[in-house]
This record gives sequence, structure tokens and C-alpha cells, in this order.
Amino acid sequence: MNIDMIRAAQKRLDGHARRTPLLNSPYLDEIAGRRVWVKPECLQHTGSFKFRGGWSALSALDPTVRDQGVIAFSSGNHAQGVAFAAREHGTSAVIIMPSDAPALKIANTRALGAEVVLYERGSEDRDAIGDKLSKERGLTLIKPFDEPQVIAGQGTVGLEIAEQAAAHGVTKADVVVCCGGGGLTGGIALALEADAPQMRVRPAEPEGFDDVARSLKSGEIEKNDRASGNICDAIITPQPGEITFPIMHRLCGAGLIVSEDEVMKTMVHAFNRLKLVVEPGGAVALASALFRQDEIEGDDVIVVISGGNVDATVFQSALSRFGA
Amino acid sequence: MNIDMIRAAQKRLDGHARRTPLLNSPYLDEIAGRRVWVKPECLQHTGSFKFRGGWSALSALDPTVRDQGVIAFSSGNHAQGVAFAAREHGTSAVIIMPSDAPALKIANTRALGAEVVLYERGSEDRDAIGDKLSKERGLTLIKPFDEPQVIAGQGTVGLEIAEQAAAHGVTKADVVVCCGGGGLTGGIALALEADAPQMRVRPAEPEGFDDVARSLKSGEIEKNDRASGNICDAIITPQPGEITFPIMHRLCGAGLIVSEDEVMKTMVHAFNRLKLVVEPGGAVALASALFRQDEIEGDDVIVVISGGNVDATVFQSALSRFGA
Repeated sequence: MNIDMIRAAQKRLDGHARRTPLLNSPYLDEIAGRRVWVKPECLQHTGSFKFRGGWSALSALDPTVRDQGVIAFSSGNHAQGVAFAAREHGTSAVIIMPSDAPALKIANTRALGAEVVLYERGSEDRDAIGDKLSKERGLTLIKPFDEPQVIAGQGTVGLEIAEQAAAHGVTKADVVVCCGGGGLTGGIALALEADAPQMRVRPAEPEGFDDVARSLKSGEIEKNDRASGNICDAIITPQPGEITFPIMHRLCGAGLIVSEDEVMKTMVHAFNRLKLVVEPGGAVALASALFRQDEIEGDDVIVVISGGNVDATVFQSALSRFGA
Repeated sequence: MNIDMIRAAQKRLDGHARRTPLLNSPYLDEIAGRRVWVKPECLQHTGSFKFRGGWSALSALDPTVRDQGVIAFSSGNHAQGVAFAAREHGTSAVIIMPSDAPALKIANTRALGAEVVLYERGSEDRDAIGDKLSKERGLTLIKPFDEPQVIAGQGTVGLEIAEQAAAHGVTKADVVVCCGGGGLTGGIALALEADAPQMRVRPAEPEGFDDVARSLKSGEIEKNDRASGNICDAIITPQPGEITFPIMHRLCGAGLIVSEDEVMKTMVHAFNRLKLVVEPGGAVALASALFRQDEIEGDDVIVVISGGNVDATVFQSALSRFGA
């Protein structure tokens, strides 16, 4: 896993992934007490950065292998990213989803041409189902984060940040990233180490699911007590990855942790000030910039919004609680 | 008013206005029955394309004149565009707003450093107040659309569309533009005449406020019966401008007209598929692409989203009616 893989992924993504802009707003600057730069990956294809990793992984496969199809486990953004990347490559995707996944996400994944296989969370073994299908059909597994070509794809966000920030004269900043398994965070950290060495990546997580922050502190992989039960579902994973953690440990500053209320307030700020639809998990980095300013250093902070796949009811609830 | 003024405005806007991306979504393509390309000016500074015209006009002024300050009449997007452009030029802005304008818009305009002067719609003469202030303080009036340097600024959207569409191999398409007084529509039409002559601009308006569509049909400036009473308030003007109408008449195809329900459905599609916050008036062009497909020609349609300054309550109402 190195910078050359990220640069190679960037070439493969060129013309396929969107180069998202780098936005700012004087209102947000005022709240944060410094200049805030926002990289909105909610505007990426399929509404999250996951398309980059999916495309990177699929495009790196040998064509004869790829043509047999791919498989992924996901209840959300990774599913859609892989499904869309598979369709654009003219191959098939099987996505294994829990039967209690939101109906909209199942429908969206199907609408992108994927075959969705549902399993019962309590009684069925997800991995066994996946293994059986892979062997029967010769499918290649695309892991959500602990896979070098996926990390390389997510790292292209970092290459873009380095270039876009430099165009605004910004070469030194904390770069706050919404963090689940660490694919996006680790990839960006590697990219910035090469192209913007004065920037420092800071993982952001929701309260109660701060496995990465604790792992960075202890120097060892720590787990979350719970696997669900937070509105930031899209970025909740049991623990950092075996590949991603050493990268984050070497390169990242301390983790930042925000509450559910701060996340919802931030969704409303993004609605009002950036005109962006941000999912709860996608808002934790911006929430850290707005509500943890004492833990951030420097005149500029760069935040990555990781996704925008939020149900209308959740969004309405944020607007009605904090939108007045 | 010519293409050279638009190119000159583009140079002055460089590094100040955002170059908004050109987005698409397979879901929208499916509804529209052709490829839909979206130019989201809701992501522009101050949440609408109006910043371009404001910046263009202010940057074209003689510095000694500009330093005395500017004045504008507006209850919404033009106010914020001029206020922000004035602040960035280090000069002052007086914005004359009706006292019944939404509190948020008044607060936002003040937060951008402008002096807001309120007047009573029924009993006070807006123009007299403006004239008096202009003379007393030597302020320059920045008109919302019937002003060449404002049209030139809005026309930079067209230059970007020509270039971004060509990068996707699209050189021929109907380009649907949310249309009020015609500054944006006319400016884009002039830009495309020069840089993408196979494209044709189509103004989009809300039902009951189709002055431009009727004017294009009759060949003369027609007025609306009413001045308000539609959720698309941001793009409602009494009639097309004296400068903008001849441009539109020479270059535009027939107008497209959509209902309030279609506008709100489109806001929900933009929420779900593009992760964009779109104001009602800003949604009429995309609504035309989705719901007036029989009146549009070709394999590709390009739509401009003109702004995203919508109140949380209006947005919630769209989501609760059409978001399930």
C-alpha cells in the first residue's frame, strides 16, 4: 500500500469519478473560528466516496476475472458504489445485504443493476453465504475498506484536496475525515503525506463508536462495545482494519468525537450554508470543525463530507429540531 | 451587450466565483428518458448564480466610484450576491428590502455586512427611498437583471456549460434555464451562441408566471397578472427586461412551464439523487426536463439549478409530501 497505487488509481478514475469541488462559507468560518474548507463527497456518484474505492478495485482486476462478476457485503454506501462501478464496467455484482436494511437502499442497489441477496442477521451466516456464491460463480470479493485497491481509490480524495487547497494558498491544515474502518482516512493520509506533508489527518467519529480514536491513543486495535444504535450508521464498523490501522497510527493526529445532536445541527448548517444534503455519518468531520474548535490547530481546517445517503424522514427530523 | 463582455467578466470572476460542476445521475436519466446534465448554481457563493452578476458589476466599476458604495433592491438572492461581492471588494452595500421579507434573508444579508433599509410595501415608495440614498451618499445602483455587466456575469454559467458538456462529448442539447427577468437566461444564450452554437436555450417558468414564454410567443414583452403567490418567488418578476428580452427572442426556443407540485417533486429528486438543496424557483428547469420530456429535443438535456435558498419549513413540506 503506497502513494504510487493512489496515483495509479487516480488515472483509472479519471473521467469516471467526479472531481468534487472544495467549498467554503463565511458563515461556517465564523462558527468554527477559522477558515473551513469542505470536500463534499456526497456529490460523488452514488452519493458517497465509496464509488471511488469500488471503481478503483474493479478497474484493477484482470478483465477475465472481472468479467465473472464481483461480490460485496454492505447495507449501504459500499453496496451502491460497487454496484455502479460493476455496471459501468459491464460486469455483474452480487451484494449481500441484511434483510432489515432500509428498503430504499435495497431498491437503489437493485436499480443500479446489482443482484441483491438478503440474509437474516440473527440466524444466517453472512460469510458462509458469500463464500458459497463466490465459489459457485467465480466472483471476486470487494472488501469495504481493508483492501489496498479500495484504499487507493479513497486516497484520490487526498490528492484532490492537496491540489485544491494549494490553489487557495492553503498548504498547512488539520484535515478532518469521517472515519469508519479507515479506508478513506488512511488513503487520504497517505496521499497528503506525499502531496501536502504539512497537513495532518484527524479521524472523526460519533460518540460511543470511537474505536479509531481509542486505538490511536493506545497504539493497538480497539473495538466498539456495540455494532449499531447510532444515526451515523454509515461509518460504524466494529474496529479499524488490519491494513488501515498501521497507516492511521503512523500518520494521523488524535481522533475527534461528536454527539448525535451536534451531527444533526451540522446537517442543518450544511443545508443552510452549503446547500448540501449530508447523511449523519457524513457530517461528523464538519461537526468536529464547528464544535471541537479547541481541539483543532491552525488558521484553516479542511473537512471531508463522506456521503449524503440519508432518508427523508431523518433529514426532516434534523430540520424540524434544529432548522428554525 | 456581447460575448466579449461575458469573457471579460469570466476573467474578473476567476478565483472569486465558484466553477460549479456538471452533475448527472442514472436515476434522473431514467425519469427524463434522456441524459440529464445538471449545473448546480445552488453551490455558488451565497447559494445562487446571483453572486456572479453582483461580482461582475462591482468589479467593472471604476474603483473611486465603487469605493463610495453600491445599492440594490432585492428581497432575496440578488441582495446576498451584491452584499457578498461588495464585502469582498472592501466597499459598502445598501440593500433595500420590503419589511415583510423573510427574517432569515434579512439576517443573512446583514451578516454579509450590508446595511439593510426596510420599507413598507403598501405605503412607501421603494424607488424614492433608493434615489434619495443614492444621491446623498453617491451610491451606484446594481440592477438585478437589466444591466449589461450583470448579464455578462450570469453568462459565465454558459461558458462553463459549453466547456464542461464538451468534455463529456455533448455539443448539441436543449439547455433549460430557470427564468425570471432573463439575466441568467439571456447571458447563457449569448455565451452558448458563441461557444456551443448547436445548443438551444429554453426558459423555464412556474405556472401562472409565464411572462417570458408568452413574450417569446407573441414577440412582444408580456406581463404577469400577479406579482406574487407562488412558491417559486425567487424567479418571479413582472416581465422580461428591456435588454434581456431581445436577446432571448433572438436566441431561445419556446418556454417550458411547470406546476408547483412538479417543482416540489423535483426538489425531492434533487435531494435523493443529487444530494442538493434546491429552492423552488431553482427547480423549474430540472422539473421541465423530468416532466416535460415531450417538449424537449435530443438525447441530452442540460438544466441549470439557479439557487438553493429555501427555508427549512418549505423543504420539510416538500419532503413530507413527496419524499416517501
